[in-house]
Amino acid sequence: MGNVMKPEDLKGIRQFVRTELAAGGTDLDALHEKPVELYERFRDTGLANWWLPEELGGRGLTLEDSVEIVNELSYGDAGVAFTLFISILGTTMVQLYGSDELKERYLKPMASAGTFCATLGSERTSGSELSKIETMVRKDGGDLVITGEKYFSTNTDFADFIVVVARSADDPEDYAAVVVPRETPGIEVVKRWDVIGLRASHTYQVSLKDVRVPASNRLAGSGLRLLEIALNASRILIATTALGISRRIRDDCMTYAKAKPFRDGTLLESPVFAQRLGQMEVQIDVMKSHLLRAARDFDAVMAGEDAAAAFVRSGTLKTALTAKMFCGQAGWEVASVGSEMFGGLGYTHDARIGKLMRDIRYVSVVEGGDDVLRELVFGRYVVPVPRRT
Amino acid sequence: MGNVMKPEDLKGIRQFVRTELAAGGTDLDALHEKPVELYERFRDTGLANWWLPEELGGRGLTLEDSVEIVNELSYGDAGVAFTLFISILGTTMVQLYGSDELKERYLKPMASAGTFCATLGSERTSGSELSKIETMVRKDGGDLVITGEKYFSTNTDFADFIVVVARSADDPEDYAAVVVPRETPGIEVVKRWDVIGLRASHTYQVSLKDVRVPASNRLAGSGLRLLEIALNASRILIATTALGISRRIRDDCMTYAKAKPFRDGTLLESPVFAQRLGQMEVQIDVMKSHLLRAARDFDAVMAGEDAAAAFVRSGTLKTALTAKMFCGQAGWEVASVGSEMFGGLGYTHDARIGKLMRDIRYVSVVEGGDDVLRELVFGRYVVPVPRRT
Amino acid sequence: MGNVMKPEDLKGIRQFVRTELAAGGTDLDALHEKPVELYERFRDTGLANWWLPEELGGRGLTLEDSVEIVNELSYGDAGVAFTLFISILGTTMVQLYGSDELKERYLKPMASAGTFCATLGSERTSGSELSKIETMVRKDGGDLVITGEKYFSTNTDFADFIVVVARSADDPEDYAAVVVPRETPGIEVVKRWDVIGLRASHTYQVSLKDVRVPASNRLAGSGLRLLEIALNASRILIATTALGISRRIRDDCMTYAKAKPFRDGTLLESPVFAQRLGQMEVQIDVMKSHLLRAARDFDAVMAGEDAAAAFVRSGTLKTALTAKMFCGQAGWEVASVGSEMFGGLGYTHDARIGKLMRDIRYVSVVEGGDDVLRELVFGRYVVPVPRRT
Amino acid sequence: MGNVMKPEDLKGIRQFVRTELAAGGTDLDALHEKPVELYERFRDTGLANWWLPEELGGRGLTLEDSVEIVNELSYGDAGVAFTLFISILGTTMVQLYGSDELKERYLKPMASAGTFCATLGSERTSGSELSKIETMVRKDGGDLVITGEKYFSTNTDFADFIVVVARSADDPEDYAAVVVPRETPGIEVVKRWDVIGLRASHTYQVSLKDVRVPASNRLAGSGLRLLEIALNASRILIATTALGISRRIRDDCMTYAKAKPFRDGTLLESPVFAQRLGQMEVQIDVMKSHLLRAARDFDAVMAGEDAAAAFVRSGTLKTALTAKMFCGQAGWEVASVGSEMFGGLGYTHDARIGKLMRDIRYVSVVEGGDDVLRELVFGRYVVPVPRRT
Repeated sequence: MGNVMKPEDLKGIRQFVRTELAAGGTDLDALHEKPVELYERFRDTGLANWWLPEELGGRGLTLEDSVEIVNELSYGDAGVAFTLFISILGTTMVQLYGSDELKERYLKPMASAGTFCATLGSERTSGSELSKIETMVRKDGGDLVITGEKYFSTNTDFADFIVVVARSADDPEDYAAVVVPRETPGIEVVKRWDVIGLRASHTYQVSLKDVRVPASNRLAGSGLRLLEIALNASRILIATTALGISRRIRDDCMTYAKAKPFRDGTLLESPVFAQRLGQMEVQIDVMKSHLLRAARDFDAVMAGEDAAAAFVRSGTLKTALTAKMFCGQAGWEVASVGSEMFGGLGYTHDARIGKLMRDIRYVSVVEGGDDVLRELVFGRYVVPVPRRT
Repeated sequence: MGNVMKPEDLKGIRQFVRTELAAGGTDLDALHEKPVELYERFRDTGLANWWLPEELGGRGLTLEDSVEIVNELSYGDAGVAFTLFISILGTTMVQLYGSDELKERYLKPMASAGTFCATLGSERTSGSELSKIETMVRKDGGDLVITGEKYFSTNTDFADFIVVVARSADDPEDYAAVVVPRETPGIEVVKRWDVIGLRASHTYQVSLKDVRVPASNRLAGSGLRLLEIALNASRILIATTALGISRRIRDDCMTYAKAKPFRDGTLLESPVFAQRLGQMEVQIDVMKSHLLRAARDFDAVMAGEDAAAAFVRSGTLKTALTAKMFCGQAGWEVASVGSEMFGGLGYTHDARIGKLMRDIRYVSVVEGGDDVLRELVFGRYVVPVPRRT
Repeated sequence: MGNVMKPEDLKGIRQFVRTELAAGGTDLDALHEKPVELYERFRDTGLANWWLPEELGGRGLTLEDSVEIVNELSYGDAGVAFTLFISILGTTMVQLYGSDELKERYLKPMASAGTFCATLGSERTSGSELSKIETMVRKDGGDLVITGEKYFSTNTDFADFIVVVARSADDPEDYAAVVVPRETPGIEVVKRWDVIGLRASHTYQVSLKDVRVPASNRLAGSGLRLLEIALNASRILIATTALGISRRIRDDCMTYAKAKPFRDGTLLESPVFAQRLGQMEVQIDVMKSHLLRAARDFDAVMAGEDAAAAFVRSGTLKTALTAKMFCGQAGWEVASVGSEMFGGLGYTHDARIGKLMRDIRYVSVVEGGDDVLRELVFGRYVVPVPRRT
Repeated sequence: MGNVMKPEDLKGIRQFVRTELAAGGTDLDALHEKPVELYERFRDTGLANWWLPEELGGRGLTLEDSVEIVNELSYGDAGVAFTLFISILGTTMVQLYGSDELKERYLKPMASAGTFCATLGSERTSGSELSKIETMVRKDGGDLVITGEKYFSTNTDFADFIVVVARSADDPEDYAAVVVPRETPGIEVVKRWDVIGLRASHTYQVSLKDVRVPASNRLAGSGLRLLEIALNASRILIATTALGISRRIRDDCMTYAKAKPFRDGTLLESPVFAQRLGQMEVQIDVMKSHLLRAARDFDAVMAGEDAAAAFVRSGTLKTALTAKMFCGQAGWEVASVGSEMFGGLGYTHDARIGKLMRDIRYVSVVEGGDDVLRELVFGRYVVPVPRRT
């Protein structure tokens, strides 16, 4: 069986991080252009879209492996990491609920060329309440025609294809997830968002006007459920970036403390500093445990007999929700403490902590804020007595 | 291989919890007498001292299994759980560093009879700084003679044997761990501590006066190191009680909310209540992940070729430290929130929350406070770059 | 003008605390009998019911003075402090909304004899939602007849009179506050609550059966509004006990640290301990500022031209709400940290911290939990733009 | 007595905030050029350097008034507020410890022209440990000659004069505070710091090379003590900016919630949102109380008979320290919660919350981090029993 991460894979990732993301600072914190060169160099590691299954030409790595990879990548830069893994949201939907033809046509090239896809869910007035989306898909002969405005979608501009979640014009209770090639007429990138962190990533507002694809491009099932299912993967990896960033903050603090004069020695010898870093390590260690368990929960369903059906039954996994919440919260604590460790220097762009703090904030914001997810956890995993653990 | 927990084991534990600890309230919160009857009934589950190895007649369950067991027991009562697992501190030392004869004589009966042992480490002026202990052990011919005062030791009064950590009279840098039968002359229980929680357990102040045992009763190696090694097991299980108590708090909150009128319905329908419980569930879920990973870390060393030597090299495991810290902290948050959920009733002994709050507090207090453990984590796992993860 | 606190007043209070509450420990933590002797000795300070107006024979001290007094008393014992000030809830209603005759008959004796009154608001199913109370008051000729069950009421058993909030039998939208002499037939103390802290105080469940008083015993206005108004005073003083307890915790920590060996010196020299205590002092200092400002807000209305009318307009004061919330929260942080400072000893009744932790918890629980008060602050002081500050 | 703030003063400030800082967003978040025009327009309010005493032609407003003013200014923009008040650090030293001639020459023009001064204390290796500063001042005839490198100093480039804290070449235990006209040869601005927030302010690294002034430019007393004394004023005003920013965050949240669809209404009707904002209001209300009390503490010393001598005795005031700590901490909580309230939009520069979060962070970083100040509070106000309150 080949879908196992090899030691040289992680080594390659670390090498990539060192070579390409080492500076870590200014240029990755700019809203730079499309990351064409960067992803070409990442492709050279042989790990581009590492999670795509082997039968489609991919590496077929598990989500547990993905946690290790994203942990390393986000230590370098979370924006780059996000760019490189967020396609998993769309590919998971296609892999589980697309026809063989769709997989062949859309996933196979991504595996070989290391290109991107994007998922278009949220709208201006429906961030956390996706059932309110107003983008419409209507049937027109053998085609589907999509029209609407999508608010936040990452990678769209340079994606091979996009997965659009839209409401059916015929049945307002029916939501479709439709695969649309990026070059289809009617897709217009309205603007790139000027995000406060993760600035090496590219998130767009997108307009869809009479975008036409064959009806067979619709994935099987309710688009909202499919999205929820695929979010299991992306939420765990988003949570993982909090781990990578936190480890970077810890290491930056240690580097600083080693050089910073304090009393008769350096800050490294301060018992108070030891307390702060000791507590950071607790958060880091616990994040790791929970991410690995959450990933294994996901992998277990994926490795089961009929993963697609099993996921339709389970929908969102508890650990995927709690991983995003916990890592967002713990990561924010790490960043909050970290940002006090560098004295005045930490308040300038000469230190990286300001960037890391802005980067890590997204974990608690994207793909469902904590208030929304807490309600979800409560309703699905606390209220029903048999589901309590 | 037999040392695997069977479904009926957990079922038996749950049955014991329901039958014996269900009331959970008043009488387990009293400083009742020696738990003779209770432990006799626990022995009937066939799980007394479940971790003792099969070759000594035990069940040989892993620490990962132990986490499941203690999770269930402490859901019923953390004081009972503590009483039933804390012998692991002493038995682990004997199992790893005792002669075959010591194992035969002391561990075998514990496996068959479900009895107890106790460990005597801390002293009045050396709680977190064990290297300061003043209890002395001196050689006298083929005997060892121990004299000193021990501050906190659990189960001593009704233990089969005790493991005493003492300083060598010959070499102040040498600390010995010595197995002493409980009935040895010179052991005097000075008092039972009137603890604020965990009141079904029994912790004593003990005086040792010319307590004499054969020299072969000394365990191999430095007593301080041996203690540190065995604390890996007990700290993880102490941390586990925070999980069990937190689950009980969650369930008590749910029971209360279901019955509590609120607006036009019950508190269960309050979105604010949902937030509180949703967040509790995050803590609970994360504790579980971390405890299981910590237990597997311990089990991995135990299952290795020469566990005794490996543990001498590694000493305290990072995850054992961070598990106790994290579960103590997260559990305290759960209890703090929980104690606000019951209105005025929660401030009376008619509700269980007051007891649960007192019970859970010990997790952050015994076997090293957080300030001490943070420093340990920092020094051993953050400062040395290669040990960082 | 006499209604000014004199230096000898505070001195007397401190003397009382030292002499009567110094032990502070065991016996005040028991559910002892009616505090007859204790309040007789408190009366000797000349400060019993210190807030009653001079024209009724009282000392007429302000709420700002009361903050100083309760700060001192609760440093000694919060249960005693609570017993001694909670009558302010009832007397404030009578003082502002009672006839001259009622004041003469009921407040004057309290001023001279240092006796108690009680307020009966909450019921089993209406803790935070008082509009749901089911105790009924009906007219019968020139009398009012009250029937119902009251859940939590402090001091009732040994009070001179009680103030009962009940729903009008004629008009379900009308709530009355009625003054009832304690000896009136039909008042039955069902039980004394076995509270988890504040155990020197006496809180009862009370049954009222056809309790008959003259119609002139009703206070003017809506009973719910009157209660809300008087809660301004009691909430601020409840909040103040968090300050007194926190100061005691700080001082207990300092005493312990001075004696506790640590490294080559004592815990007092530990930089980590300094951090914990330094942060405690921040909380203590800020509580004080906010309590004094809240008290001055109350005093300003009381000193205004028509305090009764002004309070009917304003209802609950923002600072009274935020004082109770903040001091409850900050005090809980102090207690949580404090309870980790004493090592294992802090987990026994040999240390006072366990009692102080149980005592301080009530601040966030009685007279409106934080969830309820946050909603109140939001609705009244954040939503209306002109009321924002 | 004229030194009282008039209603029209605050009105003028609010008008200035509305007109000049209303946009609040992009341009004040750029590192724009010297704020010449902005401060000219501020001078038109008649409140430039409002704290300078009347006898020097100033408005003579108290620090309590200053809290009100800075509260309003920082609601508009904390960087502008900081620019406008931070001169108080230097002017307070000159006012209290400068000769009449120095006051006449340096403070009077600031009062009339609304210009700036700067204080040069911190150095690369002596941020929190000022006693380590290496900038040297030596006597040369009737002159003082200063040489050294100063790390963080605000307003220096466009200040009228600077106050330099330097070590005496003759006596390493003697630190001098010396007034130096900005145009003195040898002062070189090395660079402007690229700060992460407060970007409307200007902080510089400055080199001093043989900077020569008359010996009479030295202020009376130890430079370190003088600095500590003046920090009382600036720390309280820095803390005040946390209040202004927090109020802005609250209002931005409310504006957003009013427009944000949620379920069948808007976010404003969400009970969970009400909780978040209700808690914010607690923090805001408490900050206000503590800032006013701290300012009154400062004003009381200033209004005393010999303020200069009194301040030399007291040094740093407790409330000034705790105000900066508490407001930094509470403000950070407000910002942390606030940054989760805006959904994905809050992660872009289309919302102001990102800027407000970066702005507010400085409160816990400049003029002493919390670790340093906690130690100070502990040593000065907790350890000495008579100074405890």
